[in-house]
Amino acid sequence: MLEMVDLKSNLSKKEFKERKDNFKKELMTLQQKIHNVGIPVVIILEGWGASGKGSRARDIISYWDPRRYKTHSIGEPNTGELRFPRMARYWKKIPQKGEIAVFVRSWYQEVHTAILDTGETFKTSQAKWRERIRDIQNFERQLADNGYLIIKFFLHISRKEQDRRFKELLSNKNTKWRVTDLDQKHHERYEEYYEIFDSILEETHRMYAPWYAVSATDETYAINEMYQTIIEQMNKAIERKESDFKHDFSVFATKNFHLSPKLRLADVDLTQALEQEEYKERLEKTQAELSDLHNKLYRKKTPMIIIFEGWDAAGKGGAIRRLVSCLDPRGCEVIPIASPTIYEKNRHHLWRFWNALPKTGHIKIFDRSWYGRCMVERVEGFCTEDDWKRSYTEINEFEEYLRRQDFIIVKFWLHIDKDEQLRRFEERKASPEKQWKITDEDWRNREKWEQYETAVEEMFANASTDFAPWTIIAGNDKYFARIQVIERVIQAIKDRL
Amino acid sequence: MLEMVDLKSNLSKKEFKERKDNFKKELMTLQQKIHNVGIPVVIILEGWGASGKGSRARDIISYWDPRRYKTHSIGEPNTGELRFPRMARYWKKIPQKGEIAVFVRSWYQEVHTAILDTGETFKTSQAKWRERIRDIQNFERQLADNGYLIIKFFLHISRKEQDRRFKELLSNKNTKWRVTDLDQKHHERYEEYYEIFDSILEETHRMYAPWYAVSATDETYAINEMYQTIIEQMNKAIERKESDFKHDFSVFATKNFHLSPKLRLADVDLTQALEQEEYKERLEKTQAELSDLHNKLYRKKTPMIIIFEGWDAAGKGGAIRRLVSCLDPRGCEVIPIASPTIYEKNRHHLWRFWNALPKTGHIKIFDRSWYGRCMVERVEGFCTEDDWKRSYTEINEFEEYLRRQDFIIVKFWLHIDKDEQLRRFEERKASPEKQWKITDEDWRNREKWEQYETAVEEMFANASTDFAPWTIIAGNDKYFARIQVIERVIQAIKDRL
Repeated sequence: MLEMVDLKSNLSKKEFKERKDNFKKELMTLQQKIHNVGIPVVIILEGWGASGKGSRARDIISYWDPRRYKTHSIGEPNTGELRFPRMARYWKKIPQKGEIAVFVRSWYQEVHTAILDTGETFKTSQAKWRERIRDIQNFERQLADNGYLIIKFFLHISRKEQDRRFKELLSNKNTKWRVTDLDQKHHERYEEYYEIFDSILEETHRMYAPWYAVSATDETYAINEMYQTIIEQMNKAIERKESDFKHDFSVFATKNFHLSPKLRLADVDLTQALEQEEYKERLEKTQAELSDLHNKLYRKKTPMIIIFEGWDAAGKGGAIRRLVSCLDPRGCEVIPIASPTIYEKNRHHLWRFWNALPKTGHIKIFDRSWYGRCMVERVEGFCTEDDWKRSYTEINEFEEYLRRQDFIIVKFWLHIDKDEQLRRFEERKASPEKQWKITDEDWRNREKWEQYETAVEEMFANASTDFAPWTIIAGNDKYFARIQVIERVIQAIKDRL
Repeated sequence: MLEMVDLKSNLSKKEFKERKDNFKKELMTLQQKIHNVGIPVVIILEGWGASGKGSRARDIISYWDPRRYKTHSIGEPNTGELRFPRMARYWKKIPQKGEIAVFVRSWYQEVHTAILDTGETFKTSQAKWRERIRDIQNFERQLADNGYLIIKFFLHISRKEQDRRFKELLSNKNTKWRVTDLDQKHHERYEEYYEIFDSILEETHRMYAPWYAVSATDETYAINEMYQTIIEQMNKAIERKESDFKHDFSVFATKNFHLSPKLRLADVDLTQALEQEEYKERLEKTQAELSDLHNKLYRKKTPMIIIFEGWDAAGKGGAIRRLVSCLDPRGCEVIPIASPTIYEKNRHHLWRFWNALPKTGHIKIFDRSWYGRCMVERVEGFCTEDDWKRSYTEINEFEEYLRRQDFIIVKFWLHIDKDEQLRRFEERKASPEKQWKITDEDWRNREKWEQYETAVEEMFANASTDFAPWTIIAGNDKYFARIQVIERVIQAIKDRL
């Protein structure tokens, strides 16, 4: 792609000045429209050191209302960020509907500096590089499928031009610090970087997230190109949105997940039970074992996710409390998932979960989870059919990514039958201390039992993978259920460590 | 305080078991009540290494619904956190109304390990130590004044007991890592730590944030004490809340701020203006200068806050755009402040601003700010009279703290007169492109011009300090105003660097 860029392109300042008022007017109007129709926009500026990424970012935002855009300058991850998966810090920064996020450097450094600066060459890093390219493709595809407009610029200059600019920056003590040792090293390896940049552009130039390689030798030419591209792409996106045009790029997803054999709720033996005495004995024993394993997990820095889904009144709360009470609170947290806030609704549905991942060595227990998309949101019509159907792939990609980052993932469906649920609802209603636990919504959900059953079994069929399988817990007997939960968690940790 | 603790205290397991059911019931009910009446609760566990802080935290939360508490384990700040003022990471973690935050280690490490581990002794660090003690006092006092219940435990064990426990932990490979080199070093310096812990307890034992030094040799005794204390304190807090008892501990604040001479809006000469030609010339010149200074600021790692307040249609947006357009977007961000979200309303009013501070070397421009408390919230009755009156002290303490952390703070009031505002409102109404900028609220605010005037002048009188003075900008002429703003920012940076 880079060889197509004419580095001698230029535009006279006079000519640009004539167009400037028009750009200003169009960009201001477009920001307003983007906000009104509710499109989230991601603009990326990548390019050579000293190619003018910062200055062009300033030009891009100069006509926009600061209340509705945000710039992100992405450098090395700090030690706090390093305790989370690499892609998490990018996910955390995605804009909400109607807002624009401008990235000066971005997730693409995962496939250039973050690899080459560790001492590897482009050749030796091929396997890791391909994997990260795929992570980026998935990320951008998921954003696009969820309505994001993505515009990616690469600012290109020649080695000679870079040399000239570095010298200029180095000659002023207030700009000297801008040229880092790393920049100098990159400059020396210009040829190798050229090859890697070019490969990146080729591999990640997609319909839904195209690259625009811009000749940046002449800055007037560069910003003129960028303004035009932004205006064109925003107009197209608004048109698509207004004509309600739908695309689903998840058909291009790899989807080579190894799915578990079909799980059926009807197959669960709900008569399984434990006597109180045996329960107490096994609870004490398993809790002690798990407590010890948590130390080990922490020592090995393995992050763990435990998901609880299940029927209302299936005993999620009680099971969670028995887990938590043997885990060190310094390394364990329960994340209750309620219906999304307005900020969460206005972003990709997985955004809030990327924000809630456990650090290395920590356990997060999700009381309900990202499976809301293909269950409650599906049944209640809170998302479109396209949305929940696509979510299986999105979730599998998410979990597969986490698995590759060394996560242990355990997913529980707490199962009870309809009669048992009724019995528990009545019990709660009758008890002054438990009344608050039962709401009208619970009764309404109960009426949709069959619809939920269908959704749950389809979820098992589509999102129970070898790296993150579902476990159904027979929950009619609480004692039995709690012991099953703890033992499964113990097993999952043992399998890994 | 520590010498009062009887380290031989103990309680038989049998006796505790008899009380356990009662504790469970009371604690469960209390969590529910705390939630219903909306009290935010902070529980701190400090104490010697291996005194059982983690295990006791687990005991404390064991009967609570995980959806309404959160545990925080506070270690060394990571490199991301180190770019913000030290107190910021604690402020960020304060709970909202009805929720409980349990801190295992806390802001108190700022006055023990964070000082002693840098090679200083308690003696050599006295000045720094006193300053940090005061920061903690202010923090806790502000929380208490805003309705927070604070319960602080110090788990005390003898040197001999600590030695015994370390040896036990070290003998098991899964717990060995828990005893760090630092722990061992602290153990060796037990006497010095004893003195520092004791001084901390004395200096920060306050009515609104009392310490409970607990003998932790016998863990049954310790948790029994802690349960009793929590139950007692929660009951008292609920009682106070229900009887609408008000206290205002800000009378104990230091308040030795050097306030600027009285600023009056009527004294502002609103006829000051610039011709377009002079404006363009000076804009270009000052923007170039500021751009260069921003580099310098970044190089020196000085953080900067620029606040914009002013009448509706006073030209805040335009002035901000002229500032931003010469600043590097990689080190500058505009923070628009709207009315608080429900999560913000349910916490101390400064919480959202502690979350929005600039990192070292960065500039944050606040389009409206923490002064909303003593202006719009006061005039519209969104907070009580006590609240906004107290806010002057809270804000001065906040800004004084930031100043000591090397922040540059510039605060603008953009002033126009009532006629000019009307002219601009009419102009906006008439222009299709600007119509969205004018709302019914703007007209309603206009009717309260005199009330706002009083609030603004009282704000000047109470919160224009030598470390963070207010600057009134004559805004009837936009050109004049914008140049004044940029020149004032330039001056503020020059004064510091």
